[in-house]
Amino acid sequence: MAKVKREITPRSEDYSKWYIDVVKKAGLADHSAVRGCMVIKPNGYAIWERMKDELDRMFKETGHVNAYFPLFIPKSFFSKEADHVEGFAKECAVVTHYRLRNKADGSGIEVDPEARLEEELIVRPTSETIIWDTYRDWVQSYRDLPLLINQWANVVRWEMRTRLFLRTAEFLWQEGHTAHATRQEAEEEALRMQEVYATFAEEFMAMPVLRGVKTEHERFAGAEETYTIEALMQDGKALQAGTSHFLGQNFAKAFDVKFLNKENKEEYVWATSWGVSTRLVGGLIMTHSDDHGLVLPPRLARIQVVIVPIPKPLPEIAEVAQKIMADLKALGIGVKYDDDDSKRTGFKFAQHELEGVPVRIGIGMRDLEKGEVEVARRDTFEKVSMPLAGLPERIQQLLEDIQSNLFRRALKFRDEHITKVDDFETFKEVLEDKGGFLLAHWDGTTETEKRISELTKATIRCILLDGEEEEGKCVLTGKPSKRRVVFAKAY
Amino acid sequence: MAKVKREITPRSEDYSKWYIDVVKKAGLADHSAVRGCMVIKPNGYAIWERMKDELDRMFKETGHVNAYFPLFIPKSFFSKEADHVEGFAKECAVVTHYRLRNKADGSGIEVDPEARLEEELIVRPTSETIIWDTYRDWVQSYRDLPLLINQWANVVRWEMRTRLFLRTAEFLWQEGHTAHATRQEAEEEALRMQEVYATFAEEFMAMPVLRGVKTEHERFAGAEETYTIEALMQDGKALQAGTSHFLGQNFAKAFDVKFLNKENKEEYVWATSWGVSTRLVGGLIMTHSDDHGLVLPPRLARIQVVIVPIPKPLPEIAEVAQKIMADLKALGIGVKYDDDDSKRTGFKFAQHELEGVPVRIGIGMRDLEKGEVEVARRDTFEKVSMPLAGLPERIQQLLEDIQSNLFRRALKFRDEHITKVDDFETFKEVLEDKGGFLLAHWDGTTETEKRISELTKATIRCILLDGEEEEGKCVLTGKPSKRRVVFAKAY
Repeated sequence: MAKVKREITPRSEDYSKWYIDVVKKAGLADHSAVRGCMVIKPNGYAIWERMKDELDRMFKETGHVNAYFPLFIPKSFFSKEADHVEGFAKECAVVTHYRLRNKADGSGIEVDPEARLEEELIVRPTSETIIWDTYRDWVQSYRDLPLLINQWANVVRWEMRTRLFLRTAEFLWQEGHTAHATRQEAEEEALRMQEVYATFAEEFMAMPVLRGVKTEHERFAGAEETYTIEALMQDGKALQAGTSHFLGQNFAKAFDVKFLNKENKEEYVWATSWGVSTRLVGGLIMTHSDDHGLVLPPRLARIQVVIVPIPKPLPEIAEVAQKIMADLKALGIGVKYDDDDSKRTGFKFAQHELEGVPVRIGIGMRDLEKGEVEVARRDTFEKVSMPLAGLPERIQQLLEDIQSNLFRRALKFRDEHITKVDDFETFKEVLEDKGGFLLAHWDGTTETEKRISELTKATIRCILLDGEEEEGKCVLTGKPSKRRVVFAKAY
Repeated sequence: MAKVKREITPRSEDYSKWYIDVVKKAGLADHSAVRGCMVIKPNGYAIWERMKDELDRMFKETGHVNAYFPLFIPKSFFSKEADHVEGFAKECAVVTHYRLRNKADGSGIEVDPEARLEEELIVRPTSETIIWDTYRDWVQSYRDLPLLINQWANVVRWEMRTRLFLRTAEFLWQEGHTAHATRQEAEEEALRMQEVYATFAEEFMAMPVLRGVKTEHERFAGAEETYTIEALMQDGKALQAGTSHFLGQNFAKAFDVKFLNKENKEEYVWATSWGVSTRLVGGLIMTHSDDHGLVLPPRLARIQVVIVPIPKPLPEIAEVAQKIMADLKALGIGVKYDDDDSKRTGFKFAQHELEGVPVRIGIGMRDLEKGEVEVARRDTFEKVSMPLAGLPERIQQLLEDIQSNLFRRALKFRDEHITKVDDFETFKEVLEDKGGFLLAHWDGTTETEKRISELTKATIRCILLDGEEEEGKCVLTGKPSKRRVVFAKAY
């Protein structure tokens, strides 16, 4: 097992620093010259691309199509939906001018004061307003419904404290915006997309999630109901990984989007919106990675297998490597032959571990004479010899094993970090000592929710969709409660 | 042949209006509430998605990877490359503030004057500056080169006169930015990507292009050489469809990007950049479409075949349709069964023609009794009966025929509209009466180039890469010239 650490701070020493080390040293992302904006480097973008491909396929399989709406939103649009403006129109990038000019003294360029916009434009923090302003022209009759539209885009929210992938001023995401003839259809859509997100998180990211609904206080600005998937990171903090909103008729009313129903009567349209973002890449890292670097589930790895000649790319080894490459590619497996002669084997091993390649095949002359190669898995560092005969199928099986092992491991950790607590002292103790999700009774008021958050920094992550009813007393106020809700400190 | 026109203005009557009609009525794009920004509707976005998929594959096959850089660029970055600032930093969207606040009188929101940025941010019109500022940290030694990176992104150029797809304030594009250790390698890269674009245009868009190099006057701001592909639209105007720039060491010098070469000496890095945009969708429309609406080459059509039951979806017809669908899908052909019972057959035919579906299969009971279906092709409106036996393979062949027929047709039109002219009167006459590309001698000065443009509105589109040397006299000044160059009016 290669023990070269490539100078990654151990998790036990400083979890935040470990995270940034992994992100930077594995070539995933870096800070940019623009405050709060990140550069997504090729290794990081490859993960996002794999995520996009799978999500896009899932969206299309559930009947959605893609479209694209403007980056800019007129300032006045935000004032149209009363809750939305409070939630979104404050910390954002404002375009006020459309031209620069040379300075009179020749020392550079400056904003041309003559080129001031009549109405300022906001760089979209989310697109409900511009999209519902557009839908007004697209919907006349029930025959025009449903509209099942998704957009892949960049959005900007002027965050003061940022962290690569998890919270950045600009981020990449998808936002679904659907329009329906009935409340029931829209509610079903919101739940369907939450389930698409949950399936994606568990089956592709190998990241177990709780499916729940947000409290009124944590709801999306302008929604009647916000469904969420919540994951648990290795430091015991929760990560909201995706949300799906039932918007009722709020945006239809704000933007006057009506349709003639089958009875020829005018009605407002029902809406949903739902999104996941490059934040998922951060969640993926914090779910699986270790002190050696990135650990990637095979289903999201561009390079699933790397072949390393030991100690160097002799012709006999290259020949076998090419054969294995061809066989693996035929099975749809992403593979790379690392025949760079300028690097030592140990350096390469550490580099591939750092970058999270799920499987490494080492080919040495002595192994070859025995008709074998050495196969190492990234998740457990186990190494075994495998015969060349039947190797591709074994590797395929190994990748599936790694995928399910990562999920099982994360699920075990998550389940070990769900704790029922019944009094506030225990609540605080568990939160500090163990972390994770706390199942506790709550009296249902926003006041208590805020107070608990002030006292402990824990927030209500969600009310579980499959949670049981249970009589109890609020962990803070002792008032009656009918079910436990999920608390955690969160990113 | 369905003759329903869906109210599209004929090309002969008003070409510009025809174009806008096709774009809007085929559901490709529309204007938005934001001046100069378009909404790309699902049918239009589907074309761009197909383009992206193929281009992305071609970029990866030539060794490139994707990454993502910030939307915003600090104003000062534009001043660093002297030519670049003149070309790009003028008509652009300027972010000056990062917060809004409620108005004191409660009448809405306003820009918070306290939240003024120290340095204004420009919404990227192109990303050379921010990317080369980043590359400085990525490149130390020749071992870090080449960097072969592409970005899929939105960009903004504050255009005064806009036209859907062809010229919009915001548009979607890809921009490749590569860094190399030698001049030769960078020059080869720039030419390689021009050829990738040309191949894509001809093989997928069925749009023939001229491969050439721009004059100094038409060169990209900051480039040493700009390679271009130029297409011809049906109204005889040219469209610049993609450009690839050899940037020399200009950006490396402006952003101080140096590397240690194999001899351990410090050198500036050599660069290229190259891009195509949603403008290609406009070019596609204007190359093939007709007075019935959109005509799509099969390779860029999401729905390549539509099956229509005649006159309605009886169970016997549905059964055959399902079988045909399954067979076509197995061949990788995109197919849709239009069993909407609320629309008349003639309406459906016209709608599918409008939306450019390459092949329509009509299934009626009488045909079925004969074991046949009726197959209509969108490009020529020809209709033939085809036996059910062997239908999928015939359809596959037909799609290939349509693809090559569209290319041949466009090539014939293009070649018929390349005219050699040797005096200025003929130049003006041909330009006005016939349009197209004019091959004429030019004295090589920017002064003459500008003068011809002022007098005729024609610009030099390119100097052909495979053009022959030929002694001649400049069409305007009579001064000696060694080769003809390509003039045209252009979008």
